[in-house]
Amino acid sequence: MPISNFIFDIRETKFVLKEWIDMDKLLSCPAYKNYYGVDDIEPIIDTAFKITRDVIAPMSKESDRIGAQFIDGKVITPDSFKKAFAVINEAGLGAQNADREAEGRLPYTIARSYEEMFLGVNLGFATFSGIPAGAISVIQEHGSEFLKQKFLPKMITGEWGGTMNLTEASAGSDVGANATKALTTETPGIYKIKGNKIFITVGDHDLQENIIHLVLARTEGAKSGVAGLSLFIVPKYWVNDDGSMGDWNDVTCIGIEEKMGIHSSPTASLAYGENDRCLGYLIGDPPDASGMGKGIEQMFTMMNEERLGTGLMGLAASSQAFFQAREYAKQRVQGNKLTDPKGPKVRIIEHEDIRRMLMLQKSCTEAIRALIVKTLYYLDLSHDSEDPEEKDFAAGMFQISNPMCKAYATDMAWSLICDAIQVHGGYGVCSEYEVESLARDIKVTSIWEGTNYIQSLDLVGRKFTMNKGKVFKNWINDIAAFMSGNKETITFKDEMKILSGAFEDFLAIMQQLQKYIQGGQMQMMPLFSTRILHAASTLYCARLILDQGLVADKKLTDLGEDHFDANFYKGKIASAQFYIKNVLPQVTMIRNLIEIGDATAVKIEEACLG
Amino acid sequence: MPISNFIFDIRETKFVLKEWIDMDKLLSCPAYKNYYGVDDIEPIIDTAFKITRDVIAPMSKESDRIGAQFIDGKVITPDSFKKAFAVINEAGLGAQNADREAEGRLPYTIARSYEEMFLGVNLGFATFSGIPAGAISVIQEHGSEFLKQKFLPKMITGEWGGTMNLTEASAGSDVGANATKALTTETPGIYKIKGNKIFITVGDHDLQENIIHLVLARTEGAKSGVAGLSLFIVPKYWVNDDGSMGDWNDVTCIGIEEKMGIHSSPTASLAYGENDRCLGYLIGDPPDASGMGKGIEQMFTMMNEERLGTGLMGLAASSQAFFQAREYAKQRVQGNKLTDPKGPKVRIIEHEDIRRMLMLQKSCTEAIRALIVKTLYYLDLSHDSEDPEEKDFAAGMFQISNPMCKAYATDMAWSLICDAIQVHGGYGVCSEYEVESLARDIKVTSIWEGTNYIQSLDLVGRKFTMNKGKVFKNWINDIAAFMSGNKETITFKDEMKILSGAFEDFLAIMQQLQKYIQGGQMQMMPLFSTRILHAASTLYCARLILDQGLVADKKLTDLGEDHFDANFYKGKIASAQFYIKNVLPQVTMIRNLIEIGDATAVKIEEACLG
Repeated sequence: MPISNFIFDIRETKFVLKEWIDMDKLLSCPAYKNYYGVDDIEPIIDTAFKITRDVIAPMSKESDRIGAQFIDGKVITPDSFKKAFAVINEAGLGAQNADREAEGRLPYTIARSYEEMFLGVNLGFATFSGIPAGAISVIQEHGSEFLKQKFLPKMITGEWGGTMNLTEASAGSDVGANATKALTTETPGIYKIKGNKIFITVGDHDLQENIIHLVLARTEGAKSGVAGLSLFIVPKYWVNDDGSMGDWNDVTCIGIEEKMGIHSSPTASLAYGENDRCLGYLIGDPPDASGMGKGIEQMFTMMNEERLGTGLMGLAASSQAFFQAREYAKQRVQGNKLTDPKGPKVRIIEHEDIRRMLMLQKSCTEAIRALIVKTLYYLDLSHDSEDPEEKDFAAGMFQISNPMCKAYATDMAWSLICDAIQVHGGYGVCSEYEVESLARDIKVTSIWEGTNYIQSLDLVGRKFTMNKGKVFKNWINDIAAFMSGNKETITFKDEMKILSGAFEDFLAIMQQLQKYIQGGQMQMMPLFSTRILHAASTLYCARLILDQGLVADKKLTDLGEDHFDANFYKGKIASAQFYIKNVLPQVTMIRNLIEIGDATAVKIEEACLG
Repeated sequence: MPISNFIFDIRETKFVLKEWIDMDKLLSCPAYKNYYGVDDIEPIIDTAFKITRDVIAPMSKESDRIGAQFIDGKVITPDSFKKAFAVINEAGLGAQNADREAEGRLPYTIARSYEEMFLGVNLGFATFSGIPAGAISVIQEHGSEFLKQKFLPKMITGEWGGTMNLTEASAGSDVGANATKALTTETPGIYKIKGNKIFITVGDHDLQENIIHLVLARTEGAKSGVAGLSLFIVPKYWVNDDGSMGDWNDVTCIGIEEKMGIHSSPTASLAYGENDRCLGYLIGDPPDASGMGKGIEQMFTMMNEERLGTGLMGLAASSQAFFQAREYAKQRVQGNKLTDPKGPKVRIIEHEDIRRMLMLQKSCTEAIRALIVKTLYYLDLSHDSEDPEEKDFAAGMFQISNPMCKAYATDMAWSLICDAIQVHGGYGVCSEYEVESLARDIKVTSIWEGTNYIQSLDLVGRKFTMNKGKVFKNWINDIAAFMSGNKETITFKDEMKILSGAFEDFLAIMQQLQKYIQGGQMQMMPLFSTRILHAASTLYCARLILDQGLVADKKLTDLGEDHFDANFYKGKIASAQFYIKNVLPQVTMIRNLIEIGDATAVKIEEACLG
């Protein structure tokens, strides 16, 4: 078996899940209380660590160099993939966890936390189980009993794959421009599908014997735009009534994209019904008399989770890059300390700017992990809590945090991995090390599952105003309550003051936006939404990492400086301090920018752009 | 000939060279006055444009896909390279321009301005003429007549290549750790060379019949560290006294790196003297009695220019990415305008965030081009001016601006190209388009020629204090004089106010740094030097682009709105406004950060970093 350079801070993940998040509360929900206690978390994380180290990580170079190939009309994956895929499924770490109805299933908060390891070492390979998981959720939530029984069992075991088909050549971000058609047949519920999809992740491959495509298409007479779309299950091979696989269902893979990264994840162009005999099952009801379909709403079940999953990818790559950079900096001897030019040669971790870059990576990845795990936690509570009020509150907090997870984590990944490359010096761009491929792999994540601009519009235009602003108010109150509940801290006295200033700055940003809108300057919202999303995410991350810092501070006080875990807690305190004092002040700058309120970008005539 | 997607804003380059920079002054220097007038610039730029479009750009995909290959101990370049290399040299656009003594040579300000095109479309290929140009400079400035006559003629015609050899496995940023040895022979001036070099750009290849390596090595008895190094000319094939090529000189290419980008530029590991028969010519005198060599000083002739050239690479890739993104945004129809949801589908250039990203790219690339061209201009004046005072002033301004060019342009490239990819949506990560390869190609530039951290130490630790702070004072006075000389502007009234505030903020940054140093907190300098370099670069770029804006504003007033060039000038005004109001406020944030003065990164114990 190839050697793996896999490094991961298991201690940090355990801190987040066992010492920070109120896991007792989540695990006391009916879905979990007879199955898991907090003590079960550690062995699960440890198992995932070993599988990542021994099975998934060693394939990374092959994934990148050979990747998925399109040969004679078929997508071929490396041989190692087939074996690894089997190992993961046998260990119960594959699509099984997407089964929200299974007894003894893990909450997302735990399952996705260990998934960070898979994604960080082999993002391309991880899409083979990640994307089908989303398809399972959709069928489970919206499919009839007939459809569930027909497709889910083999999808859950990983024998069959799954995809999501939204994009067409002229319908990318504009999903409503979808031109794929669904024509009625003699059998109710079964439609003839005709159209071409592009950019379909794991859209065709040889890892699984069948692939269950979820396809957005428009029935005859349905409305134009997104509202008229319906969702169809279109298997690659037809599934007979006895569960056996039947004929090929006229789904042709035209080719796969040559991409910057995730080379092992085939990005397929699929032609549905080239021979006029592609059939699909409608999920749910056909469009009503007014032509309104249910497709986009159903697809959003998947998209919401995939968006959070995409944020997790950003975190996974950033944190893996950080661990690699830290390890490199500890080993690599180069130069003298600036403050001791005649002294001995030192490892580069002793150089000031290397430390700045490492602390930036440490604090930002921990802050983003706090954001994502908290959001997963709210997602779980919104499903599993018995208290309707808590469910409702958690659903709102999930809704508002989700676009931040997706966009902030993936935008930050590009710049954090840049710093990890920089720490490696010239080796940073050499394929011998891991960091350069992490940058290549992660770039697509700011684009797919709704571009980060779409996320910012979702946050500022929709989430901030949903339920008459109640969700926004809950979110703001959460930060305010955190501040007023922790006024007494001595360790973080300065940080609390900076947080409080940033909070005021954020409120000023929102007031300024309001002013523009009331003054009829509607375009100021989309012009500033990306920056507002960054301000909101930074503020919320600051609140969350400071919360972790407070927990660590208390533990350190309780256990004492001599305890074997003291260094870990000191590191957590340092992360909180660094983030607040070096990253959070961006909120003040964004306030400054929106108050300056430059509209040059929208006012300039196109001809003047060159 | 393959089709090329090459796009370039020739109008902008002509504005910079003909309407903004005081080219009359430069071209009236003795080196140019009998050869060129301002009117000669246009045809030169046009020729370079056509060669880029028709010869260099069409090879980009092959450069990236096939690149340089290491086969049977030899570095093989694609066939198209050989033809293109010949075309460029025949057109006089190759290494010839590095000949600072040639009659009728072009000033760097012009030659490097058109080189931006070559670098932007094919950075890997451009290194084959760029690196030898630096080697030519060194031999020209420091070599004896004998050495100049032996090597320069064929290097200048491009028949022979050149390299710079600093890096060894244990001597990267720490050049002083160099272990390559130079042993005396019976012939004075000729040494036996023994050692291994890595990361040698275009270190071996089949494009040129001979490669003239410049190699840093240590003679017997020389001091340790950088001070003891000498510089040697080590040809791949020995050159006989009659100028013919002799025996192979025992320089072995061990292999080339597999890299993230610039695949066509071989990054070689070279073994000198594996068979104990590698000879080199010492440049200049051997180390004196105290063991001090002249090598590093000689190499800096090359490095200073290569640093500026590296900044130009950052600009070239960012601007090429911008042109591609703008073109894509003008063509791609997707979605409705947010402010007109029921209206027609629009091209994405009508979406607010796309415009924000395009204006950010436009204004930043123009600001960085202003910085680089101004620095080239000072470099030329420092060589060519007849007025000793002007020469001295220009030399100082070049010295202080050079690390900003190198670090700011290459750091910004990573984030600007990110936005260009984002504008392309999913196609941004597909190899079918150009932008993803620009990101891969450019990453190394923040590392080579002295990492950007080294640049920041050079700026803050050396350039800001050189000549007892006189250079810094000149630079500050230049900005202050610009502000006081343009108080009356109406078009840029707000911008002048913001610039003035940023100027105060920058002075406060320097005062705060002073306070830390006086208080014994020496580590605050290296801890904040990267951020100070960014603040200084942003401030200076703002001053320069605003200067361009003022020129454009005057032209627009003179020519009137109906003039065919009015849109170009309006675009220039918009760039200045956008940069000042959206980018410059970072200086205020950096002031905030240094005043908070968090030292967590240097104080944290290593064990707490995890």
